[in-house]
Amino acid sequence: MQNPLFAKKASSQPKDPVKDEKVEETLPPWKVALIDDEDDVISVSEMVLKRVLVDSRPLVFLKAHNAEEAKMLFEEHSDIALALVDVVMEDDHAGLDLVKWIRESNKNTTTRLVLRTGQPGEAPEEDVIRDYDINDYKNKTELNSTRLKTTIYSAIRSYRDIREVEQGSKGLEDVVSATTRVLQASNSEAYCIQARQEVQDLIGQNSVCFYLQYQSINALGNREKIQLSLVDNEYQINTDIDTNIFSNAIIQPVNHSLLTKENVCEATQFCSFTRLSDHSESAVLVTFNTPISQLVQRLLNVMLTKISIIFENLTRREDIERTQQELMYILGDAIEMRSKETGAHVRRVSLICELLAQRLGLDESFIQLIKHATPMHDIGKIAIPERILHKPGKLDEQEWEIMKTHAQVGFDLLCNSRRALPQIGARIALYHHEKWDGSGYPSGLKGENIPIEGRLMAIADVIDALAAKRSYKEPWPADKILALLKEERGLHFDPDICDLAIENFDKIMALRDIYPD
Amino acid sequence: MQNPLFAKKASSQPKDPVKDEKVEETLPPWKVALIDDEDDVISVSEMVLKRVLVDSRPLVFLKAHNAEEAKMLFEEHSDIALALVDVVMEDDHAGLDLVKWIRESNKNTTTRLVLRTGQPGEAPEEDVIRDYDINDYKNKTELNSTRLKTTIYSAIRSYRDIREVEQGSKGLEDVVSATTRVLQASNSEAYCIQARQEVQDLIGQNSVCFYLQYQSINALGNREKIQLSLVDNEYQINTDIDTNIFSNAIIQPVNHSLLTKENVCEATQFCSFTRLSDHSESAVLVTFNTPISQLVQRLLNVMLTKISIIFENLTRREDIERTQQELMYILGDAIEMRSKETGAHVRRVSLICELLAQRLGLDESFIQLIKHATPMHDIGKIAIPERILHKPGKLDEQEWEIMKTHAQVGFDLLCNSRRALPQIGARIALYHHEKWDGSGYPSGLKGENIPIEGRLMAIADVIDALAAKRSYKEPWPADKILALLKEERGLHFDPDICDLAIENFDKIMALRDIYPD
Repeated sequence: MQNPLFAKKASSQPKDPVKDEKVEETLPPWKVALIDDEDDVISVSEMVLKRVLVDSRPLVFLKAHNAEEAKMLFEEHSDIALALVDVVMEDDHAGLDLVKWIRESNKNTTTRLVLRTGQPGEAPEEDVIRDYDINDYKNKTELNSTRLKTTIYSAIRSYRDIREVEQGSKGLEDVVSATTRVLQASNSEAYCIQARQEVQDLIGQNSVCFYLQYQSINALGNREKIQLSLVDNEYQINTDIDTNIFSNAIIQPVNHSLLTKENVCEATQFCSFTRLSDHSESAVLVTFNTPISQLVQRLLNVMLTKISIIFENLTRREDIERTQQELMYILGDAIEMRSKETGAHVRRVSLICELLAQRLGLDESFIQLIKHATPMHDIGKIAIPERILHKPGKLDEQEWEIMKTHAQVGFDLLCNSRRALPQIGARIALYHHEKWDGSGYPSGLKGENIPIEGRLMAIADVIDALAAKRSYKEPWPADKILALLKEERGLHFDPDICDLAIENFDKIMALRDIYPD
Repeated sequence: MQNPLFAKKASSQPKDPVKDEKVEETLPPWKVALIDDEDDVISVSEMVLKRVLVDSRPLVFLKAHNAEEAKMLFEEHSDIALALVDVVMEDDHAGLDLVKWIRESNKNTTTRLVLRTGQPGEAPEEDVIRDYDINDYKNKTELNSTRLKTTIYSAIRSYRDIREVEQGSKGLEDVVSATTRVLQASNSEAYCIQARQEVQDLIGQNSVCFYLQYQSINALGNREKIQLSLVDNEYQINTDIDTNIFSNAIIQPVNHSLLTKENVCEATQFCSFTRLSDHSESAVLVTFNTPISQLVQRLLNVMLTKISIIFENLTRREDIERTQQELMYILGDAIEMRSKETGAHVRRVSLICELLAQRLGLDESFIQLIKHATPMHDIGKIAIPERILHKPGKLDEQEWEIMKTHAQVGFDLLCNSRRALPQIGARIALYHHEKWDGSGYPSGLKGENIPIEGRLMAIADVIDALAAKRSYKEPWPADKILALLKEERGLHFDPDICDLAIENFDKIMALRDIYPD
């Protein structure tokens, strides 16, 4: 029957007297609505009840003299613990109508409703309690001071129990939404920022420090470790198994948690351990300023467990993505090796395309596809005989015709895949020797008939080739490359992309420092 | 204050009289514990209350004559709505001690506890209600039939409200765990099976039909659609944008949901619409036999939304994985193209390695790595000049030395990556020409000093090459290949792997039908 997560009530916790005093100071009073058309009844009730404490919390009174005033109270306050409602006010059943309105129109099912009547004959107790969703029915004449206090205790305790479970439920709902947002993070940094935000929202404190350590044994039997943290606005990630870049204050509780395979819970920090699979586990540490309640602790544990699983999912996806990118570069290296060129050209061209595509304002996911597909642009050269590929002098016409087939061969190798990356790779391979004025190959396409990825690749390839030293030529100086760009604008190159390349020329040249020849 | 998901109570729903009658039949009675040392009190209480219905549900009575019997009741029944507890039984405060035990030792905070006393002086009302976590305190002399019924209504309604919120909370917790399990599914089919299972558990019915339709616009601007369903034990997936393989009964509500961007909720089916991003959305339809409650509907919606997001995550990961595999094959094709061999060889060798690795009982994730890395085994041939690679006759000693460098070149191309796939690719490239007896190259390693992936690749490569037609040779007949395997067992090949290849020879040959030359 009991909800294991939320079953324990404050009342059944062993109490720490020092802490409890603090709680008294901060806990808000219970709101009690006194609804009666007789001022005397209201003031006597208030007098009897004003010193009552329920679970160490005082009462505060909201007063109404008729149903209309009472409705306003309920519209304004959604957290009324108890209402004492007179049956006869504006008319004989004003109180009964009000009760119906509270439950049905105001959709308030939490406030405990106690009817009080001076004329029991008007609304017979047995009928009323059966037909109306009230919580008690009292005859005013019998309702002495003790009886009134008993009623108050009883009703407020019911309200407390309902609210406590409700808060747990609401908290869980928030955790569900929170983890959904974390699930949508596209990379480790975005994940870390979102996860910390959700923890902050849950515990209602800012400047929480978030730290996650994930460790696993990969398919090759190697140990892997990922540590990431967000402290203030500084995001840090470490994937080196042998080093620690984080402070002992963080590492110590995390290591303890990983060693004991248990959560570590202290006044201002919580470390949640999660066993993810036979080969992987993680610990998440959050530190904060003010101690958190038992309920928040339990919710935090649910959230952090979930967040750990989401991280494993994300890191696997990131691993595959990075593997893919590295394989693309290796493929590019292999192709360039045949042309006796360096792999650095492939990497730089990839970054030049990315830079120009971003300046063009293309969609980010499309930019990433282009960036990752560019290393495949010359894959068709695999089929070009060495006597042509490595010919020191100028190619004769027949040789040139063979050389030109590499665009189509590259396309043919890639085009059968339905996946986006090989598809765009196929298009880059096919179109990267087309020219804006229609004088390129293989199809002599003109202007915007050449797909944008082909036009980007064309200019990136030329700029980087000119700036590089090759067996048959020295690197061109920057001003000579710039002059060529201006000259070929609208001839070889798309004029818009060419303008962007000229504008960003220094940035493009700076990429040579990242991957020098 | 109100929990938006669970605020609505049955009592505030518009009631359908026909449905309500049905509910009466199936709803269980409220359990009421009568705890009193006087038999008369128990039997009078029972007589007064036996015809009472609370929210159309009857009462059932559990009886105890002392605290010990009462404890047994509480240990046996976790769903007692209300206990009427006599204060004085075995001793003057047996009832009070029992209340303390129920709340603190039995950790039951849900059952409503009403104390009844015949000697109010023994336990003054005001002290008792303040100091004990009870819900009401009654003097037996005042507790007439009407008053008793009022007490019952009041207490059971509180219990009902608490339970209702508790059930919502418990349901949400279950949804959290359920979605965690779905999140861990490694592919679409496992996802589908797990998702259906969780839906079945949530709604408490078997033979639920599960259908998901996911649609998106990819980075190339193309529309994509994935439909998957699990009906009985039949899993179906369709990724062809132009065809529908599913029945109208499924497609019609799903299309309606996708068109209106809203949930469709009917007696025995529920279709949940989720907008996932600017470029993607999905609808999940579940159909079942018996109508489900409002609470379950709300929980189902939370679950299906979450499940949709998880699917998008999964399908993205699967897309990258498949892209990677296809790129590996394309790379293999490109390499084989230089050797004038067909790409089918690369694909078959990959499957032979997978089959033998499975028979060897290697770890599944390691097997998948090997399978996906094998296409890279000859990547080093990129550096071998055509005069050697394509030489029709036998290579002279110097040419052979150059040819042998392809193992090391392949390793060098791949070894700089820290990712598992290129790493194992590097090892396969380096070791696939080593022989068990130490007579291979480049290092002349012997026996188990050759990594297992190298030994697997060595035999797979030879078997498939012999079975294929090449420019310089006809395909070998099966018996001749088998004879060679037996001959080279322990010489060229690992004897254990060789035995497995012989045992599974027919299956290996059958792979030729999947990828013929």
